Amino acid sequence: MPLAKLVHARFGTLSTVRPDGRPHSVPIVFAVVDGALVTAIDHKPKRSRRLVRLDNIRANPNVSVLVSNEDEDWTRLWWVRVDGTAEVRDEAGPDWVEALITKYPQYADRPPDGPWIVVTISHIAEWTYS
Amino acid sequence: MPLAKLVHARFGTLSTVRPDGRPHSVPIVFAVVDGALVTAIDHKPKRSRRLVRLDNIRANPNVSVLVSNEDEDWTRLWWVRVDGTAEVRDEAGPDWVEALITKYPQYADRPPDGPWIVVTISHIAEWTYS
Repeated sequence: MPLAKLVHARFGTLSTVRPDGRPHSVPIVFAVVDGALVTAIDHKPKRSRRLVRLDNIRANPNVSVLVSNEDEDWTRLWWVRVDGTAEVRDEAGPDWVEALITKYPQYADRPPDGPWIVVTISHIAEWTYS
Repeated sequence: MPLAKLVHARFGTLSTVRPDGRPHSVPIVFAVVDGALVTAIDHKPKRSRRLVRLDNIRANPNVSVLVSNEDEDWTRLWWVRVDGTAEVRDEAGPDWVEALITKYPQYADRPPDGPWIVVTISHIAEWTYS
């Protein structure tokens, strides 16, 4: 069940840790491919491709990805959190681009070309209100 | 503008860092009171009140709170991220309970009674697609 919620979640929050010990979080879109979570630095406007998240992962590969259901009816709240280790890659693995385009039609006209972050999942935690 | 988005956001993600250097994130509801961000450990079901987030903050007060607009129209995406230092308190400060009840009618029948996390904001970053 938590894996299904993760697979279908439209957005997640990727948290990394800066070299000085401060946390850093950004929203991401992602796909689960062969049990790993993959996300791309894509064409959404950014100041540069030298991003804090990439520098952080290169220095400390421990990451967390949180997906959550937000609802004003708090009995419907739930979240799933992945703990894992991340790696930055310049090239996409097999099926990564296709998985992201299938999940996100927004990518169809302009597929993500990386760099890529692939998260090897070490633990999945889940919380539901009820 | 980023402060207004923060003040009105219904949910946020609180990120802390574990003593072993791994990030930890949970969804929160919160209010901004006198320029600080306050959130309570409330009555939503949890395994215990001895929570990872509290232990993390006591060991490393650096936290990040992310609020974001999720939309399938990616041109409407935005996020605001607060960096700050957090403190765990057993007692609410003046106006904290009232601020949370005003923002969240869900709390009216059962006001949060803590423990509390108060985040002194040191930096606000903002991103918008367009």
